[in-house]
Amino acid sequence: MSIDYKGLVEKYGSPLYMYDFDYIENRYRTLKEAFAGKKSLINYAVKANSNLSVIQHLAKLGAGADCVSIGEVRRALDAGVDKYKIIFSGVGKRDDEIEEALKRDILMLNLESEAEMKRVEMVAKALGKEARISIRVNPNIDPQTHPYISTGLHENKFGVEIDMAKRMYIYANKSEYLNPVGIHFHIGSQLTNLDPIKESAMIVADLVRSLRAIKIDIKFFDVGGGIGVVYDDETPIPERAYTEAISEATKGLDVTLLCEPGRYMVANAGAFFTKVLYEKNNDGKRFVIVDGGMNDLIRPSLYNAYHKIEAVGAEGEKTPADVVGPVCESGDFFGKNVPLPPLNHNDIIVVQSAGAYGFTMASNYNTRPKPAEIALQGGTDRLIRRRETYEDQVRLEKEFLE
Amino acid sequence: MSIDYKGLVEKYGSPLYMYDFDYIENRYRTLKEAFAGKKSLINYAVKANSNLSVIQHLAKLGAGADCVSIGEVRRALDAGVDKYKIIFSGVGKRDDEIEEALKRDILMLNLESEAEMKRVEMVAKALGKEARISIRVNPNIDPQTHPYISTGLHENKFGVEIDMAKRMYIYANKSEYLNPVGIHFHIGSQLTNLDPIKESAMIVADLVRSLRAIKIDIKFFDVGGGIGVVYDDETPIPERAYTEAISEATKGLDVTLLCEPGRYMVANAGAFFTKVLYEKNNDGKRFVIVDGGMNDLIRPSLYNAYHKIEAVGAEGEKTPADVVGPVCESGDFFGKNVPLPPLNHNDIIVVQSAGAYGFTMASNYNTRPKPAEIALQGGTDRLIRRRETYEDQVRLEKEFLE
Repeated sequence: MSIDYKGLVEKYGSPLYMYDFDYIENRYRTLKEAFAGKKSLINYAVKANSNLSVIQHLAKLGAGADCVSIGEVRRALDAGVDKYKIIFSGVGKRDDEIEEALKRDILMLNLESEAEMKRVEMVAKALGKEARISIRVNPNIDPQTHPYISTGLHENKFGVEIDMAKRMYIYANKSEYLNPVGIHFHIGSQLTNLDPIKESAMIVADLVRSLRAIKIDIKFFDVGGGIGVVYDDETPIPERAYTEAISEATKGLDVTLLCEPGRYMVANAGAFFTKVLYEKNNDGKRFVIVDGGMNDLIRPSLYNAYHKIEAVGAEGEKTPADVVGPVCESGDFFGKNVPLPPLNHNDIIVVQSAGAYGFTMASNYNTRPKPAEIALQGGTDRLIRRRETYEDQVRLEKEFLE
Repeated sequence: MSIDYKGLVEKYGSPLYMYDFDYIENRYRTLKEAFAGKKSLINYAVKANSNLSVIQHLAKLGAGADCVSIGEVRRALDAGVDKYKIIFSGVGKRDDEIEEALKRDILMLNLESEAEMKRVEMVAKALGKEARISIRVNPNIDPQTHPYISTGLHENKFGVEIDMAKRMYIYANKSEYLNPVGIHFHIGSQLTNLDPIKESAMIVADLVRSLRAIKIDIKFFDVGGGIGVVYDDETPIPERAYTEAISEATKGLDVTLLCEPGRYMVANAGAFFTKVLYEKNNDGKRFVIVDGGMNDLIRPSLYNAYHKIEAVGAEGEKTPADVVGPVCESGDFFGKNVPLPPLNHNDIIVVQSAGAYGFTMASNYNTRPKPAEIALQGGTDRLIRRRETYEDQVRLEKEFLE
């Protein structure tokens, strides 16, 4: 697809997030087809990009939602996701969140500790309801990814050990207010190596078999998300190999295979557009200063993440430049030593693969308004979130001025 | 002051930011008095904590404002800061920001590159106005702090070299639309060593003298901010030593000494309150899961920053625990191996020194609402920003659902 970057920035302003909805559709269908012949449910991980229109787009294709707060559950419901396709995960659910999730009758709550199970039971009892639950098992497998997005080792806060999980299933099975219907693991994010996933799936499938032996019947086998994407020169896991590894691990088990892709669905569908303010040179070091900042896209600062950066339409010999924003921190950069041609005021810079963990992590640091978001679909573009104003930012505090 | 943490959390909810306004007042007066006998202006760096009531509190004491976006300029004006005490700094100002700053007739625009100066001149010319400017000089001094908050080396994006600054002053002095009234440097944040500041001040004062020799008369000598505070066991720079070093460096110059403290004013005035959801233990590793997350306070994740963490009212033997939030990232933590007594659901955890770069960097990651903010002053508490709701979060995107 050829995108009219300049036209879009003129129409919607800068900085701007753009998501290619056709690409997202293609990703969804590719993954769903890779599960062909198996009972499967694809629960989009809302945290990756929680724009209501993005969720709605996936919901229309049949996707469920993996949510990590009651806010995300509400987003999924508002966007039209079927309540029986919504999972509520996360290590720290408040009582009011548990209560609302139970009242809204979503598919299941994914539990991450014994203490949490007891609270869910307590809340369910108070409501006189049975809570459908799954338990997140921590298989203690090194996912070989960035420490901040690695979650499958015991030193992480996520999930429970196998033995603990078994004890919890036995407890839940006896409880009048808990119904253990699922099992879950998720060892990390941006995984490009299939082996740790396969190994984890086998460990967890063995647990399902041993539960079956004691008449605890798990219906949903949730392998989490974490399928890596191409930011730079990564070799992603082929969809078929991924689904076959899971099928192989769960052989003989009558379960619905459930997965929770977030980044996989949206990362490469998105781009962040920002305009050049000016160039500067400090003692031979070249800086391209743009109007987008770390408040808009924090991944380079927070994870030292790589994003491909391109200048639209600019020509001339490329020399290395740091692409930096207006925020008053040295950590405010999108890329370092990026080969770029000479640039002029208002030239457009595209930060690629910004569809996941971009806008969702945006802040108002330096009293900067959050960018607008647009969708491209079938050759047309449309706004899916208005640009914030100054008034939006002070709305909750202005009344308290004395 | 003894603070009723439990009462405040019951009244305003959790998580919660609290700022001690009496402490802020004391900090302002202490620093102002350290400048006694000198013409001085203290420009609070709004980016540290931009709550309107915080700015208003300082404005009432006489403080000016150091702003890094037009949004911050608007905040300062809305909060009652005198326009002639407002500086607009930052490496990347958009044309519309420059235009509004000139129309609002603030004290001066602080320039960080030759290209920016040309744009300011162009905008000023279009308005038929003269722009009061200062130039940020990069003295190439190592401030000995965290790389992300270090700004005084040439490899950073900030400021211009001495020679370039001189050329810019000569250009500005000749321009009909530029009036060079100030000079500025800022070498980093959280500085606990006076020497780099003193050395920088001497370099920049020499530049002022050489400008005076060619009839360019600098009126404001702006030493930036960056005065370090105590998070852990730092020894901060005494205020008197700080102001005397600056006075010494500028001896014989008839200038107003201007400084831009942010963290100094508010860091230790603030605390972040969060409630315990539950404890969990993974293979011998203890986790305390709280209802606040990295979206509320990102400094530990982003800078690996230390904050003192205390449990309110809890008793018993202390053992090390990671204090972590509900956000689905291993980077979502407030402290690691924090000695804490056994904790129960709803116990209150206080993350100290969270008044600077806390709320201002907060995001809605995981569709989590931004916390409420309260002020303590003269023994009473009051809300200064309402807690966000789910509706607040989707307000700008809901209309686009199809």
